[in-house]
Amino acid sequence: MPNISKRGLEMPASPIRRLVPFSEDAKSRGITVYHLNIGQPDIKTPEVAIEAMNKLKIKTIEYSHSAGIESYRRKLVEYYKNLGINIDKNQILVTTGGSEAISLTFLSCMDPGDEVIVPEPFYANYYGFATAASIKVVPVASSIDDGFALPAIGEIEKMITPRTKAIFICNPNNPTGYLYSREELEQLRDVVKKHKLYLFSDEVYRDFCYTDKPHMSVMHLEGIEQNTVMIDSVSKKYSECGLRIGMMVSKNRDIIDTALKFAQARLSPPSLGQIAAEASLDTPASYFKEVHKEYIKRRDFLVEGLNKIPGVYTPVPKGAFYTVARLPVDNADKFCQWILSDFSYKNQTVMMAPASGFYTTPGKGIDEVRIAYVLNIENLKNAIETLEKALEAYPGRK
Amino acid sequence: MPNISKRGLEMPASPIRRLVPFSEDAKSRGITVYHLNIGQPDIKTPEVAIEAMNKLKIKTIEYSHSAGIESYRRKLVEYYKNLGINIDKNQILVTTGGSEAISLTFLSCMDPGDEVIVPEPFYANYYGFATAASIKVVPVASSIDDGFALPAIGEIEKMITPRTKAIFICNPNNPTGYLYSREELEQLRDVVKKHKLYLFSDEVYRDFCYTDKPHMSVMHLEGIEQNTVMIDSVSKKYSECGLRIGMMVSKNRDIIDTALKFAQARLSPPSLGQIAAEASLDTPASYFKEVHKEYIKRRDFLVEGLNKIPGVYTPVPKGAFYTVARLPVDNADKFCQWILSDFSYKNQTVMMAPASGFYTTPGKGIDEVRIAYVLNIENLKNAIETLEKALEAYPGRK
Repeated sequence: MPNISKRGLEMPASPIRRLVPFSEDAKSRGITVYHLNIGQPDIKTPEVAIEAMNKLKIKTIEYSHSAGIESYRRKLVEYYKNLGINIDKNQILVTTGGSEAISLTFLSCMDPGDEVIVPEPFYANYYGFATAASIKVVPVASSIDDGFALPAIGEIEKMITPRTKAIFICNPNNPTGYLYSREELEQLRDVVKKHKLYLFSDEVYRDFCYTDKPHMSVMHLEGIEQNTVMIDSVSKKYSECGLRIGMMVSKNRDIIDTALKFAQARLSPPSLGQIAAEASLDTPASYFKEVHKEYIKRRDFLVEGLNKIPGVYTPVPKGAFYTVARLPVDNADKFCQWILSDFSYKNQTVMMAPASGFYTTPGKGIDEVRIAYVLNIENLKNAIETLEKALEAYPGRK
Repeated sequence: MPNISKRGLEMPASPIRRLVPFSEDAKSRGITVYHLNIGQPDIKTPEVAIEAMNKLKIKTIEYSHSAGIESYRRKLVEYYKNLGINIDKNQILVTTGGSEAISLTFLSCMDPGDEVIVPEPFYANYYGFATAASIKVVPVASSIDDGFALPAIGEIEKMITPRTKAIFICNPNNPTGYLYSREELEQLRDVVKKHKLYLFSDEVYRDFCYTDKPHMSVMHLEGIEQNTVMIDSVSKKYSECGLRIGMMVSKNRDIIDTALKFAQARLSPPSLGQIAAEASLDTPASYFKEVHKEYIKRRDFLVEGLNKIPGVYTPVPKGAFYTVARLPVDNADKFCQWILSDFSYKNQTVMMAPASGFYTTPGKGIDEVRIAYVLNIENLKNAIETLEKALEAYPGRK
């Protein structure tokens, strides 16, 4: 029998998945598990999206254009225009989730062995897409003590080698919730310009910014239009994770043309998802206002609650719906397993994502967890209380 | 500005897409274009699938399990059981179309530089997926004069090198419509066993077999259960191309576990598509009977019509809904463009796929086209008549 691939062996299993059997086991023992580990919000999908399916009247569910349904791309042009991003329909490629937008960006811009610099901690699946594309992720450390701000630009420049093709940011950031400032984005602009690099920006949490200023996209940066690729998705914006609809946006025609060749091989993004996503562009503004209000309430409640627990620290994230917290534990991987397998309080426990999964540098994030505030206040309250009691009881407490 | 990737440059543009502007232009001149070039059938999607959407009652469109909705996989187990394929739900990975099943198979089983042997002509996008995965496609010639039967097994063995990891067939075949015999499949079994290779089989046209015997799958081959991966899809079976739902099936646990790691990175296959696909498993038998009857009628009509045209030859395909025909022309790429740009008959013309796009060996298939019989008899009749007149008028006629 032949062997499976080396890249398959190198591909990390999801660190959260490892915990799933422990969570399932706790549930089978009648324990309520609060899921703070996931990026699947409890927010309702806009009704217009479900209605589009309920009213669906087609005879044959056909392939769409490989770049996405044209009417959808035209409406997206209007959507982006309202954000001050001026593009045309041929600068958008509709993809199978933000996931595929990242894969297509890697495949179009980078070759096997090329390097992409990513501030660490970063969304674990970037590493997976990089492994699939045989490219190398070069982490540059950000720190909880700086609230996970962009690492000093000199530190980033130090990582540049002849194989470096790109810098990749997530803004607002998953897992840290950090929102990059105009100043930081301009520093990145100067570096990519100076070293002739690409700048990839995953902006799928754009609608979850908790400052008074509008979100600043890499698409707003002048002078690097040909270097820039923006990744977007409907998953978080409209709580439509299951649609698997994302976008790859660039003013660089060579990039989009190249990505389209890879996109043609897979024929088309999901048609039903595109129909629902197109309908979602008519979501009333009130929907976002409510969601926004709800997340600010949750964030404030969570951050205050966590920082009140002795030994726990988390910065105040300004975007997304995650925060990374430092816990007074020997090893957050062990703790996250222990709290599911050996602990409960009032018949409740908590599932969190150990932050080690968001670092590739060995040993980093060993006492950190990512917490998603995708639960309502009542559940968050119970979860925080449970976490506090668990930290008191945990044998590996520092 | 940095360069796009070398693999992006090597990635071929779809040979059919090249013709699209000529087709659009013909239409803008008021000419009816019969599309014999595509794998998008005109057959209706089963009503149960559309109904599932019309009745959709969910609040949030969530991610599914990365391997697919569990209830769907359980129903698929029953479906395959009825075909004599005995697997359990953990041996199925639901994918984003058959396309992703192929990509995940390549990524899980093969490393950059590894080789896969594929009988030529083959579905052009295999080359695209191979390019994306940095693996090498090694073609082994089949010939229109043998009706595109499996090349002599000795010819296949000659192509095996230390980098060969797999043999990849499509059965029934796109683009040729060839249906592999039990004897041919057993020859492949012996070769993969002897040389410790994988056998990948794309069986998305399984339901389109026009013999009295049931389709034989690689999953029926005994003794190579650990070497075998089957690729499947709902696209053609239920005329649900736009759902983007496929399956990767293997009894080799290492392969599925490895593929699942890549699948976890992209989170989940499309949820709405899976709901529609699960509902489609309840499609009444009468649906398939009608479709089957319709395709046999179309095939017979097409093959007879083509072979009556002087200088044209096509074998009788026993499966899928394609045939490859040899035309009396200097160059089928030129002819397929000319018929759109410079010809019309009774204000009609025809779009076909030049077969050169299905060969990687230079010069092969230069006088062949792939014709899809996805039009009704009336349109097929007009298309054949138009093709005959075009061949009479074409300046590059041989």
